[in-house]
Amino acid sequence: MDFLPPPTIPPLIEQLRAFMETHVLPAESAMHNASVSLSDTIHPIQEAAREEGLWMPQIPKEQGGMGLSLLEHAIVSEVLGESPLGHYALNCQAPDAGNMEILIEYGSDVQKERFLAPLLRGETRSCFAMTEPERPGSNPVWLKSHARMDEDEWVINGHKWFTTGADGADFVIVMVLTDPGQKLHQRASMFVVPMDADGLTLVRNIPVMGDVGREWASHGELRFDGCRVPEHSLLGERGGGFYVAQARLGPGRIHHCMRWIGVCERALRMMCERAATREVAPDDPLGNRQTIQNWIAESRAEIDAARLLVLRAAWKIQTIGAGSSRADISAIKFFVADIMQRVLDRSIQTHGALGITDDTVLSTFYRHERGARIYDGPDEVHKGVVARNILQGYGLKRPKR
Amino acid sequence: MDFLPPPTIPPLIEQLRAFMETHVLPAESAMHNASVSLSDTIHPIQEAAREEGLWMPQIPKEQGGMGLSLLEHAIVSEVLGESPLGHYALNCQAPDAGNMEILIEYGSDVQKERFLAPLLRGETRSCFAMTEPERPGSNPVWLKSHARMDEDEWVINGHKWFTTGADGADFVIVMVLTDPGQKLHQRASMFVVPMDADGLTLVRNIPVMGDVGREWASHGELRFDGCRVPEHSLLGERGGGFYVAQARLGPGRIHHCMRWIGVCERALRMMCERAATREVAPDDPLGNRQTIQNWIAESRAEIDAARLLVLRAAWKIQTIGAGSSRADISAIKFFVADIMQRVLDRSIQTHGALGITDDTVLSTFYRHERGARIYDGPDEVHKGVVARNILQGYGLKRPKR
Amino acid sequence: MDFLPPPTIPPLIEQLRAFMETHVLPAESAMHNASVSLSDTIHPIQEAAREEGLWMPQIPKEQGGMGLSLLEHAIVSEVLGESPLGHYALNCQAPDAGNMEILIEYGSDVQKERFLAPLLRGETRSCFAMTEPERPGSNPVWLKSHARMDEDEWVINGHKWFTTGADGADFVIVMVLTDPGQKLHQRASMFVVPMDADGLTLVRNIPVMGDVGREWASHGELRFDGCRVPEHSLLGERGGGFYVAQARLGPGRIHHCMRWIGVCERALRMMCERAATREVAPDDPLGNRQTIQNWIAESRAEIDAARLLVLRAAWKIQTIGAGSSRADISAIKFFVADIMQRVLDRSIQTHGALGITDDTVLSTFYRHERGARIYDGPDEVHKGVVARNILQGYGLKRPKR
Amino acid sequence: MDFLPPPTIPPLIEQLRAFMETHVLPAESAMHNASVSLSDTIHPIQEAAREEGLWMPQIPKEQGGMGLSLLEHAIVSEVLGESPLGHYALNCQAPDAGNMEILIEYGSDVQKERFLAPLLRGETRSCFAMTEPERPGSNPVWLKSHARMDEDEWVINGHKWFTTGADGADFVIVMVLTDPGQKLHQRASMFVVPMDADGLTLVRNIPVMGDVGREWASHGELRFDGCRVPEHSLLGERGGGFYVAQARLGPGRIHHCMRWIGVCERALRMMCERAATREVAPDDPLGNRQTIQNWIAESRAEIDAARLLVLRAAWKIQTIGAGSSRADISAIKFFVADIMQRVLDRSIQTHGALGITDDTVLSTFYRHERGARIYDGPDEVHKGVVARNILQGYGLKRPKR
Repeated sequence: MDFLPPPTIPPLIEQLRAFMETHVLPAESAMHNASVSLSDTIHPIQEAAREEGLWMPQIPKEQGGMGLSLLEHAIVSEVLGESPLGHYALNCQAPDAGNMEILIEYGSDVQKERFLAPLLRGETRSCFAMTEPERPGSNPVWLKSHARMDEDEWVINGHKWFTTGADGADFVIVMVLTDPGQKLHQRASMFVVPMDADGLTLVRNIPVMGDVGREWASHGELRFDGCRVPEHSLLGERGGGFYVAQARLGPGRIHHCMRWIGVCERALRMMCERAATREVAPDDPLGNRQTIQNWIAESRAEIDAARLLVLRAAWKIQTIGAGSSRADISAIKFFVADIMQRVLDRSIQTHGALGITDDTVLSTFYRHERGARIYDGPDEVHKGVVARNILQGYGLKRPKR
Repeated sequence: MDFLPPPTIPPLIEQLRAFMETHVLPAESAMHNASVSLSDTIHPIQEAAREEGLWMPQIPKEQGGMGLSLLEHAIVSEVLGESPLGHYALNCQAPDAGNMEILIEYGSDVQKERFLAPLLRGETRSCFAMTEPERPGSNPVWLKSHARMDEDEWVINGHKWFTTGADGADFVIVMVLTDPGQKLHQRASMFVVPMDADGLTLVRNIPVMGDVGREWASHGELRFDGCRVPEHSLLGERGGGFYVAQARLGPGRIHHCMRWIGVCERALRMMCERAATREVAPDDPLGNRQTIQNWIAESRAEIDAARLLVLRAAWKIQTIGAGSSRADISAIKFFVADIMQRVLDRSIQTHGALGITDDTVLSTFYRHERGARIYDGPDEVHKGVVARNILQGYGLKRPKR
Repeated sequence: MDFLPPPTIPPLIEQLRAFMETHVLPAESAMHNASVSLSDTIHPIQEAAREEGLWMPQIPKEQGGMGLSLLEHAIVSEVLGESPLGHYALNCQAPDAGNMEILIEYGSDVQKERFLAPLLRGETRSCFAMTEPERPGSNPVWLKSHARMDEDEWVINGHKWFTTGADGADFVIVMVLTDPGQKLHQRASMFVVPMDADGLTLVRNIPVMGDVGREWASHGELRFDGCRVPEHSLLGERGGGFYVAQARLGPGRIHHCMRWIGVCERALRMMCERAATREVAPDDPLGNRQTIQNWIAESRAEIDAARLLVLRAAWKIQTIGAGSSRADISAIKFFVADIMQRVLDRSIQTHGALGITDDTVLSTFYRHERGARIYDGPDEVHKGVVARNILQGYGLKRPKR
Repeated sequence: MDFLPPPTIPPLIEQLRAFMETHVLPAESAMHNASVSLSDTIHPIQEAAREEGLWMPQIPKEQGGMGLSLLEHAIVSEVLGESPLGHYALNCQAPDAGNMEILIEYGSDVQKERFLAPLLRGETRSCFAMTEPERPGSNPVWLKSHARMDEDEWVINGHKWFTTGADGADFVIVMVLTDPGQKLHQRASMFVVPMDADGLTLVRNIPVMGDVGREWASHGELRFDGCRVPEHSLLGERGGGFYVAQARLGPGRIHHCMRWIGVCERALRMMCERAATREVAPDDPLGNRQTIQNWIAESRAEIDAARLLVLRAAWKIQTIGAGSSRADISAIKFFVADIMQRVLDRSIQTHGALGITDDTVLSTFYRHERGARIYDGPDEVHKGVVARNILQGYGLKRPKR
């Protein structure tokens, strides 16, 4: 039992912190200015990152990445997570990171050349369309969108939303029903579709918690109306869509949760800075108030505990595989999301009126991370996964439905 | 002991609900469209309200209002609170309502004619500037902005923010230091200043939780740089600013809290509608989930309890006066704000991805009512007020500072 | 809308407070001394109460009680609830109070003379046996105990527990299956059985949270092994047991919840006394700590809100009947029990080491009121009642089972 | 970074689990039977443990213990913690374990022979007297009890309580003021006093949460009335009492917290067993209820996170010392105690009426671990320690008092 990271990691973290300080944090304010292109903001940062050898930490070296293990990337992901721009800087943002992973794993040679290669180089962006407005995201086997073969082509019809980064993406990986007659988990398939395909429309960027968003930082609503794609657009096996989606989830959850830990650390640091300097009366800083001290202490303990739980899950996936770690992967989801919301709430309250303005990053975190308890399956679903996994060991009979 | 409202109230509430349904709710979506003028949206609704005799419920009939008692207006305020536009419709929104009240009470004849009369007619809007960015709102006796007499004029210098509705307002009531040598609560005075006065600048509308806002729905940052106003601009007595501010607070708190109850009712209704209709599997609506049922039941009990607490505080103010009800007025602040945040959170979670979009009113409530635990003094301050009020009765010695 | 109690109540409350101070509180310490008979402690207090005309507040005057309305008795019940001995003093403790009510309503003349009359005079005690160890208390229509007719007699077999006050009781009212072939809610009947009946055994007083208990303050485990009782032992109609039980519940819930409010008030008062006087450093009382102040303020607001919710439920039962107030009766159960647990917890924490000793009444409350979230149906069941009641109005389809 | 325990540990844990199953759990019911001597219950178990080589895991081998490191003993302590009897079995219970540690470190040869040796052999028990009824335990430098030199002897006067295990102890280590004129942390000294010393009285075993307790499981109230002890009774240096107490705390906190984790695991296991088997309707086990599933999932995540936080603190103490780990040692105190209380509460609620009886171990845990948030300094104090430690790094000026 050893709580020290691998010896290569601390210098990397140090480098990364300096990079964040120099390149990323100063660019944050541009995010709120809708008239500034995000690309103009992010591309120079990506350039700088690449020059420092900071590029796609989770991708194998032979693919141009840094080749970190899951556990190592987890530690990196926390540092990046301290800024909403952090993951963009190293081209390891959702959903591109996940798309890279499944294209590497399941993509045909053609798909790799046409879609993966430029994505790895940071020349393009991509998106991932699974959630549907008419169907609950909590039930990934109940989709309405579908594709059928017509001669040599697949014809896709459907309605998707919360397709993150659709605005300006080169292609979308979309999951639809192809085999409704099969067993529950073998009905869906994935397709790689260029965003400029006929019959595919980006209806709008969905306004989320006050932001309509743009480019990377947007969530698209898509319609597929008789969108025809060649047969080889299938990603992985026909009927294998659910399993590809699952494969995408385990490591993705680790990245997300560590990003949330980064959010927490940033919020706690800001809370402490505010507490130490804001005077509520002459020579009487806020940090002397016991309520504020309670919040700081509780946040410190909660964040540290949460981080350990996520790192152990990463270590477990590395050691015994994602399949056997399913309950752990569900547990970190709701545990960390809940703590993040509490820490953000305390930090905002500590900042008073300033905390609800967009003058600090707290508002962005507070608004956009409210989704953390919803996306990738609502917390309530993950609690059920954990509990039923445990209760099986006690012989619980599941109800007949 | 009788929990029935006065017999005149139920028909009024019925009328009001119909009015909300017909005129107010359909206009909500315009709020999110920054290119639509809010005045263009609200003025026709105000016109319709006036025709129905729904105008300034809390203002005496002789001033053109409906002359409701505090308790009666509280009940009305809940209904209006169900929409972010509700109070605008009847011209009883903050901060205009409070400004009307103090102008009626403390205004000179000149001030009444010049500032109050058009405000009551709905021809102008106003704002109230007390909070300063450099000083904690939680300590209203510690101001930095000040005014000094120079010949016959007051010269105001200072920096204010969270001046709600400054954008487009006709005048501002501003509180500044005038007598720093006096006792703590006798140092500040209030002035009525036209927004176009020389030396007064609206620096910006502060972006709050993703919205830069406009007109009614905005929070201004103001600078007074040697702003000169005539001597008769003083509102109430010199050095009496703190007491005028206090007078404004008691009934204002009741209105706010009942508005929050309205927010809660709207959110709960939406939660129930969603639960009853959203299927998580074929023929299996969300409302059959025990977690959702817990949220609905807890929300129902909490909202009902909160409403009763606020109404009792209103009744107490009417019966024994605001001064003797100070702890009650503080208690409802933190009690209701906390419940509102919880109910909104549950309603959003019940809506899943839809809940974090701006497609429903929940996002607006969630973002803008986060301030409820901060404005008018953070909850932490009000808890101290209640506790020390109680502990005095037990002989607690206050610490020497 | 009026928050003042009826004018006859304040003087009664004053009398009652004096009575509690003089007679009840000084006797509390005897409760912890297992070698002291509770009867020896309580009977003199009852004598004194009776002399003051304080006897069975909720029972009609013609039956020897004070004839208070439900709302009036609710207010009285809070005062009595401040001591674990309070309700015994006025002979209105559970389960005797409920038994009196159903015997008055459903008892035959013979039952009234034999069982009710001495109970009203305080000469006997009684108990009520419904809960079974093998079956969930949350499902009152699923009983295992049963009775069958054999010639002119009923033969009862079954196993009951949490039969409060069985130790020393004169008789038990027991609910068992009599008509298993009938509809779900028409299968059970109630019987009045003398505790010395053949075949009826008090197995033990169940040790609850560290107390084995005795007499009034005990929870018995009963076995009926071929216990034969005459036909006229039936209380109410055959198959009507469930409805009699329900009738017992509405007003009983009001009494319980107001008793809990009394518990809260006592705990809060103790918390304040401790906070005002306990020094954590020389001349630095605990009450100056912000955390303690938070607890006091939150408790004050929560208790006041809870009381109003209960009183409104009482008023509603009086006004529109218990049947139409079912959701209200469920809501107060979980709402008040939760607040009581929190207030007790804070008061204990404020008392430090003293708080966990049996030197104060807090330990008794903390241990024995943990059951409040369980008895009369666990909170989880009541939340379901409230939620489904609401969701029906939104057209929720219930799942088929 | 490695989450595997040292390879010697898993077989030891397996042995220990078997030992608990065979020897400890079956003896638990004897605890509740006040007529059974605890010694008669525990001594045979200790005999068996010793034969298996399970004896004082945290004590060096040369002193007769198992010589485990702090981290290793932490893991062992969790297993023992699953039963209230676990630590007694291996003679590593509080306060004996701590007393052994300070006697080994600070004891004179005479003290070691007279007091330590039989304690290590399990022939005697001991106790530790620091807390005073008249002074807050949260302020260990503010004591009232004192000793003064009179000729060659120390004369001790004072009043102590919560002296765990005083009943039947061979000796007490007591901390009293000796040098009131010195600096705050150099005023107190420790003495080793035989329990049969003249002037030392065990006033009573304090009834705690319904149990008056006996022997090991008791908390004594002591009076020192002119109790004279020889000069060499001083333990460690004169004026060094506070530092000896501190030395005792770090590892002690780890043992406690891991014991609490054991309590949590036991409670969770019971909750799962109950959920899987208790039917709320025919063929409908409780475990299918979503609320129960939520509780199980949340408990699982919380316990795992808490354990990691404690183990990391143990690892940190081993790596950089207890002094530099002070904030970590405070953080685990309040973090784990809070989770334990929640898990116990959920397990009780899942057990329904059974949960509040003394028929399961839950009642014992629930009642006696309420103290966890109070003893060794209330949580509120530890939160302050953590927060001020952090805020120092941000330059917070402490208030002048």
